[in-house]
Amino acid sequence: MRVFQWSQLSDQQQADVLARPAQSQSAELQQQVAAIIDAVANEGDVAVLRYTRQFDCETLNELRYSEADIAAQANKLSTDVQQAIDTAYATIRAFHLQQQPQDIRVETAPGVVCTQRFDALNAVGLYIPGGTAVLPSTALMLGVPAQIANNPRRVLVSPPDKNGELSPALMYVAQKCGITEVYRCGGAQAIAALAVGTESIAPVAKIFGPGNSFVTAAKQQVAQRSGGPAIDMPAGPSELLVIADDTANPAFVAADLLSQAEHGADSQVILVSPSTSLIEATQSAIEQQLEVLPRSATARKALEQSALIQTESLEQACQISQRYAPEHLSVQMDDAEQYLPQLTLAGSIFIGHYTPESGGDYATGTNHVLPTYGFARNYSSLGLLDFYRRYTTQTVSKQGLAQLSKAIITLAETEGLRAHARAVSIRLENQS
Amino acid sequence: MRVFQWSQLSDQQQADVLARPAQSQSAELQQQVAAIIDAVANEGDVAVLRYTRQFDCETLNELRYSEADIAAQANKLSTDVQQAIDTAYATIRAFHLQQQPQDIRVETAPGVVCTQRFDALNAVGLYIPGGTAVLPSTALMLGVPAQIANNPRRVLVSPPDKNGELSPALMYVAQKCGITEVYRCGGAQAIAALAVGTESIAPVAKIFGPGNSFVTAAKQQVAQRSGGPAIDMPAGPSELLVIADDTANPAFVAADLLSQAEHGADSQVILVSPSTSLIEATQSAIEQQLEVLPRSATARKALEQSALIQTESLEQACQISQRYAPEHLSVQMDDAEQYLPQLTLAGSIFIGHYTPESGGDYATGTNHVLPTYGFARNYSSLGLLDFYRRYTTQTVSKQGLAQLSKAIITLAETEGLRAHARAVSIRLENQS
Ligand SMILES: [Zn+2]
Ligand SMILES: [Zn+2]
Repeated sequence: MRVFQWSQLSDQQQADVLARPAQSQSAELQQQVAAIIDAVANEGDVAVLRYTRQFDCETLNELRYSEADIAAQANKLSTDVQQAIDTAYATIRAFHLQQQPQDIRVETAPGVVCTQRFDALNAVGLYIPGGTAVLPSTALMLGVPAQIANNPRRVLVSPPDKNGELSPALMYVAQKCGITEVYRCGGAQAIAALAVGTESIAPVAKIFGPGNSFVTAAKQQVAQRSGGPAIDMPAGPSELLVIADDTANPAFVAADLLSQAEHGADSQVILVSPSTSLIEATQSAIEQQLEVLPRSATARKALEQSALIQTESLEQACQISQRYAPEHLSVQMDDAEQYLPQLTLAGSIFIGHYTPESGGDYATGTNHVLPTYGFARNYSSLGLLDFYRRYTTQTVSKQGLAQLSKAIITLAETEGLRAHARAVSIRLENQS
Repeated sequence: MRVFQWSQLSDQQQADVLARPAQSQSAELQQQVAAIIDAVANEGDVAVLRYTRQFDCETLNELRYSEADIAAQANKLSTDVQQAIDTAYATIRAFHLQQQPQDIRVETAPGVVCTQRFDALNAVGLYIPGGTAVLPSTALMLGVPAQIANNPRRVLVSPPDKNGELSPALMYVAQKCGITEVYRCGGAQAIAALAVGTESIAPVAKIFGPGNSFVTAAKQQVAQRSGGPAIDMPAGPSELLVIADDTANPAFVAADLLSQAEHGADSQVILVSPSTSLIEATQSAIEQQLEVLPRSATARKALEQSALIQTESLEQACQISQRYAPEHLSVQMDDAEQYLPQLTLAGSIFIGHYTPESGGDYATGTNHVLPTYGFARNYSSLGLLDFYRRYTTQTVSKQGLAQLSKAIITLAETEGLRAHARAVSIRLENQS
């Protein structure tokens, strides 16, 4: 891993060190995805089945999982994994339960009552990636808040394996989260089905969840369609920034950097520290730990675009983190809490020596669907609120309207909207 | 206006009646906008000035309004309009003040503390349309919540008039909302500047506000850029659906329909009622009121794509409204409140006989930036929360980690992520 002395870098060099790996969303990929969406819009289930047979399971006949089959798959899960899921479910549920929104009611002027109301989205689509990986944790991160929000339709889609099955772990999570609508499909075709609807999959209001470049492109494209669904947030490669000082344990820091690096060759990990000795010790610990890591090839690639940055102070380390706006921020210092007011631009923050990033991936209770790629500057971590929509109401009495009438009429006339003014005056002239 | 008997329509006819006017976002427009964004990204202020001179004010030299000039412009505003703005400011502020989010802290398991924190976005861009219209109300709807959220940078942009000025009303609102960063530019060039930044306009995290088709396309395009800003919501033509029964006053209903229709030729208004007599009386009231309406040509065009729908019952009227998901929903019945549980899919609801839609445009206190075009199904009305981002933290003690370790390690191994498991076990082996 490359080591940089921050203060000795030019502005351009600093920018280069903190640059994200370029995301290639080729025009070709965009066109392929557009063609898949069109096919699903025109042909419905036929197209979804055709693509699923092509990419996932040649012999698939039935997209939907019956409730009995969900239960049968769930039952195959080992007790160990069941218990692990139960533990994670409990913490995630505890944290998201406290995020429940409150309606408000305000009398803004005499006789003028306004409310803001939260309404669970009527249908949410939860995309769980498949392929070689089994990702029950992502299903928990989407399924638990949807269950708490009690969205009337909660639709889980995931690409099936070669036998047309979804994993027992995934079906166990679906069952726990009360998800009864499960379809065996993934990729752009699944996103298209959730967006435009098919004979068997009714369209949803919002699509959640991570995926490969096809899924990401499909989510972007359907969200741009006229009347298309909302999506959770823009996607990008995953990343971790660690701030550490001399009190940090280099073996812990190295383990966290590597756990982020093993996610994918496009991951990025950054250590920022004023301590030369910590940086050196972390570097050797990384080499040591890489030797026994099954996914070391992937991790090594990620480390190539990563950096160890030596700063002049912890303040400077915090400034670099704020500038980078990492998805995951780990603060490994005895007095980590003291620096939190300076550390706000991150998706999720892992505080202290015993809070590994992998804890948040699975079981601390926070949501692991987080803004990547610098989007932590302008987007929120996934939370319960994302499963609701807000709308407002107002009730005005005749007296209330009379009091506001001068303001409304004056503003309407300033804006050249005479009928707007008339809608007020006609109500006050009228004797009925 | 066309009248339809809902129950006598085929499924296809029903769909046609509720269809929104088609939005044409031509490929040509998209390319023009992309070229403008590229020019601003490459040339900065020079490009913004060039476009502003071309479209708005030939002689413009200075993009930024000084604080002294904001004050000087604001001072030119008549007392009448000042007072109207003061009244609207007070109600909007009262309503949005109650929307302040609360951070949460939850001990999700022994020794595992998670928090969710709200952080005001560090920079927000507020776009106020210009041209022939003066829109202080939109400035209030964006400026008041930004002032409450206290976003460190609140940037207002609006196209100048031929003399290079923004209106006194707009500058009075800017002053009231504590906005000190004001630029004379509009259109795609202003959105581009807010997104990518120029020498004089630093980039923002999120862009708010309505605009013409150039502005809408530019917002969409910059939000798709890698690392681009967030935007408030997708845009579309404005619309009103009124549900009314025999207790409604047809003159009021007609006035509301017309006040929506005067917004633009692409507006859509729909009356849904089980009452034949109300529909007939509303129809004549519309004709009568149109005669004295300055913008009657615009309104007549909007009415061409609008509808009066007769239903068999109020239940059916509510179902139609839920299916249409209007931006503005007016419920003009003595017992309007009783139907509210069935009426959730709208941007804002106007309840009872004395709550004109124009009240919400200006002064009831609710926000008039609302999801149009059916987006009320999946997007929220603008509110204070949109000026914040949420992030999470977790702090785990060594004992807490020990308790969660089995779950984390089991799930990490299920997902094939050995380094994730190692980041836990290494912390529990270690004796330091
Ligand atoms: Zn991870
Ligand atoms: Zn209006």
